Amino acid sequence: MKKNYFSPLTPRGLSNISPPPPWHYAGDFLVIDFWAKPEAVKSVLPAELQADDKADGHAQAYFIDWQFTGEHDEFLDPARYQYREFFILVDALFDAKPVAFCPYIFVDNDAAVARGWVQGFPKRLGQVSQTRTFAAPGAACPKIAAGGRFGATASTCGQRIARGTVTLEKAVSDLAVLGSRPTLNMRHFPRLAAGQWERPAVHELVESIMDNFKIADAWMGKGELTLPECENEELSELAPVRCGSGYRMSVSYDVTDLKTLVDHSAAAK
Amino acid sequence: MKKNYFSPLTPRGLSNISPPPPWHYAGDFLVIDFWAKPEAVKSVLPAELQADDKADGHAQAYFIDWQFTGEHDEFLDPARYQYREFFILVDALFDAKPVAFCPYIFVDNDAAVARGWVQGFPKRLGQVSQTRTFAAPGAACPKIAAGGRFGATASTCGQRIARGTVTLEKAVSDLAVLGSRPTLNMRHFPRLAAGQWERPAVHELVESIMDNFKIADAWMGKGELTLPECENEELSELAPVRCGSGYRMSVSYDVTDLKTLVDHSAAAK
Amino acid sequence: MKKNYFSPLTPRGLSNISPPPPWHYAGDFLVIDFWAKPEAVKSVLPAELQADDKADGHAQAYFIDWQFTGEHDEFLDPARYQYREFFILVDALFDAKPVAFCPYIFVDNDAAVARGWVQGFPKRLGQVSQTRTFAAPGAACPKIAAGGRFGATASTCGQRIARGTVTLEKAVSDLAVLGSRPTLNMRHFPRLAAGQWERPAVHELVESIMDNFKIADAWMGKGELTLPECENEELSELAPVRCGSGYRMSVSYDVTDLKTLVDHSAAAK
Amino acid sequence: MKKNYFSPLTPRGLSNISPPPPWHYAGDFLVIDFWAKPEAVKSVLPAELQADDKADGHAQAYFIDWQFTGEHDEFLDPARYQYREFFILVDALFDAKPVAFCPYIFVDNDAAVARGWVQGFPKRLGQVSQTRTFAAPGAACPKIAAGGRFGATASTCGQRIARGTVTLEKAVSDLAVLGSRPTLNMRHFPRLAAGQWERPAVHELVESIMDNFKIADAWMGKGELTLPECENEELSELAPVRCGSGYRMSVSYDVTDLKTLVDHSAAAK
Repeated sequence: MKKNYFSPLTPRGLSNISPPPPWHYAGDFLVIDFWAKPEAVKSVLPAELQADDKADGHAQAYFIDWQFTGEHDEFLDPARYQYREFFILVDALFDAKPVAFCPYIFVDNDAAVARGWVQGFPKRLGQVSQTRTFAAPGAACPKIAAGGRFGATASTCGQRIARGTVTLEKAVSDLAVLGSRPTLNMRHFPRLAAGQWERPAVHELVESIMDNFKIADAWMGKGELTLPECENEELSELAPVRCGSGYRMSVSYDVTDLKTLVDHSAAAK
Repeated sequence: MKKNYFSPLTPRGLSNISPPPPWHYAGDFLVIDFWAKPEAVKSVLPAELQADDKADGHAQAYFIDWQFTGEHDEFLDPARYQYREFFILVDALFDAKPVAFCPYIFVDNDAAVARGWVQGFPKRLGQVSQTRTFAAPGAACPKIAAGGRFGATASTCGQRIARGTVTLEKAVSDLAVLGSRPTLNMRHFPRLAAGQWERPAVHELVESIMDNFKIADAWMGKGELTLPECENEELSELAPVRCGSGYRMSVSYDVTDLKTLVDHSAAAK
Repeated sequence: MKKNYFSPLTPRGLSNISPPPPWHYAGDFLVIDFWAKPEAVKSVLPAELQADDKADGHAQAYFIDWQFTGEHDEFLDPARYQYREFFILVDALFDAKPVAFCPYIFVDNDAAVARGWVQGFPKRLGQVSQTRTFAAPGAACPKIAAGGRFGATASTCGQRIARGTVTLEKAVSDLAVLGSRPTLNMRHFPRLAAGQWERPAVHELVESIMDNFKIADAWMGKGELTLPECENEELSELAPVRCGSGYRMSVSYDVTDLKTLVDHSAAAK
Repeated sequence: MKKNYFSPLTPRGLSNISPPPPWHYAGDFLVIDFWAKPEAVKSVLPAELQADDKADGHAQAYFIDWQFTGEHDEFLDPARYQYREFFILVDALFDAKPVAFCPYIFVDNDAAVARGWVQGFPKRLGQVSQTRTFAAPGAACPKIAAGGRFGATASTCGQRIARGTVTLEKAVSDLAVLGSRPTLNMRHFPRLAAGQWERPAVHELVESIMDNFKIADAWMGKGELTLPECENEELSELAPVRCGSGYRMSVSYDVTDLKTLVDHSAAAK
């Protein structure tokens, strides 16, 4: 029997939006290095973080096909728990140490929204797709090999917010190229009572903690990314000035913890 | 310019998942009175509420076609802000007073999920549809008149969770038949830090506050409802023992406040 | 019992993608007059039609919230049969008579795709949304009155293909302003046998026939439309040079017939 | 430049619902052998086919994650061309030879609907999901190995029509166990002109032709399948009396041809 960790709080916990931790993830990643205008990166940072001037606007775009499971074979219910994700990480500093901050993230699944909010990822719904590879060869799928090409797109509310392409060149021999900055988020949950709209019940700078992190079949090559302008969306302000490497890999990890760095949660008045 | 009330916290607030309050709503309602097994109703109540034995398991199912706007013409962006909703209210007592509690609610829009969570509505994503009427008459649409029939369905993750039908008989002359219990919710937001999973950052019994509540074109008649059994869903445990009246009406109201009745939010350890 | 008119051909016809004719429709229309580049309009016409030089590129964009029914209360199953539609009509000539031709049309429902293909409408899937009005007044919905504003968008595969707005000024006193050109389509169904790909089994210029056409609550005012550029989509080539009037109305009609004007269907070799 | 094979017929063919053949496919298959009531199988056969009494109601359920491409790198646009499919094949006889016939098939993509109809597959829209495996190991994904479990579901219009599970036991050493019956379909496209509704423009018994068929990583084990009852759907009449083996494999092939076995297409009156 599941416990109720999220809402709704139900007799057996089956109807809860997501099972409680531990949370287990496995997925295929397309990642693209790019450089936005440094002032655009600075504009999405919370007050607790500082611009990383040496990074010169460096950021990464992630397109991920995810499979999730909790402790009760949720991976056998893909209609409810499998999902796709697109997000941006920008380089920043926290207490003079290099970190990555997530200003925008989109998924196509509500269980993933719920877990994301609790981790501080500011998730909205979107539609995300990436080219896959399959064991049976043919014209319909690229190989994990030099020359293999993978495309990806993300949209929200019917507007395309991102288009990425990765052309593989070589296997990644040193995983350090993938970067090692900790991922920081603002965990945030507002109050609705009149007079308290600016006193969020939860407002914390947090650091993501991922256990049992595994990478397989990591390849790299050329990355290309566009972040098109959209009505009433600000993501395009981070549009690439230039793009760098692109990566494709499989990743798995577990989540059972979160580290609070700065807690600005307000008491109710 | 919008302020950032929810996440993500962005330079101009346009990419925020929903604008801040005040929130304005207008919609078409199909409502069906029904009676579940009293012990099933009792099993979905939080500890702060008591069973309303006189209600004998009374509950209501709501199917709503909603239009939302904030202060910046959000009603002109229906792809982002228009949505559809299904929920259940069950009769209960709080401090011996009659109230209605929302154990299950489903919407097809993430801005609505965000606002709902902050109000304490335990929203998940679902697909909800109801029969409409149009000003041009014909076989394709029922009239708001005796004999008019309206159907509705709700599903989540590809499983049908509800099927309702309302057959109109007469205009509602006394709005008191629609009920007047305040709507109570558990506002809930967990902690993820290891060792604190059972110390939610937010856990409050709250009362919904709706201003400028208007009802138009209210009709009533016969209501029919089924809540089919689904894999790993508990909603069907509230399946009707019998159904009562059905209603169709248009409703509008504003939301700018929330009343906390009992606050069990836990301090971090 | 339904008959099998479309596929799949099943024992009782219930699983057929759409019921057979007669088909009954009711819906809310947002319509925007605009003028594209005349050569762009000419480029989407089939060989059987001629450019209407006097029209100077005139076209109309339609956003429609539809409800459909056949003969078995399909309007009570809105999850399966209710749908939304966006299409373009361009002015043209057939045998020197003014007609309107449909080069692009998008709906969010497969039963509507099936009926559309049989009528010759070249339907693809898309997401279409329009602002609604409700009987209960308030900030969340415009009124059918001077100053009322209605927005609409359409997208396909996560790319926005159209954005329209109509600001009402006055009731339509003479329905002739809405136009009266017959709607022509190319009904088309290819062959797959090797060597016969260019010998379609069905290739006919047809004229739509709508019976019991009714219009209610027709208002007009200012129309605005954009057709944004999208990757691998050609619709934006019809982007407005200028926009004209906008209309909002409710419409109903029935479909039970189709008129073939030119039949180029090829015999199998 | 693409040619226009389907509708819409556009200047550059980019907006056509699908590129012309050749069509290239690659995908992951979950397949489950089962036996329905023989009279239920018989009831879905067209007049041109006979019941295969020796098969005793044998049928197969397929859940497939597909990637498609034409000749212009369509695999790099997964939002438009990647899709998921569920279908049933039942055993039958044609001219005393064993064949498989497809009575029901559901996909989540309109380009796949268009190609399917031209091949005679009676496609409707549905939502289909299957458990995936990823190169990075962990609790969130099963391995292609003994004990690996894969789940799948299909729904249409918010009703679940199928639930399957495959538990792997061993690699498939002899691909003959997968079966070798040719796949037959009724290619069907109706007329709408009054008086001609029962004279379809296209009505042919056809045989699917797949070239360059490749299978990789084929495993087999225990299969389980349910086909739940749904309102106004007939698929559940094929519900398993018993289930047999389950299979998981990757498959690729090309389509450039179709063989007509019996042509009942009617001339227009």
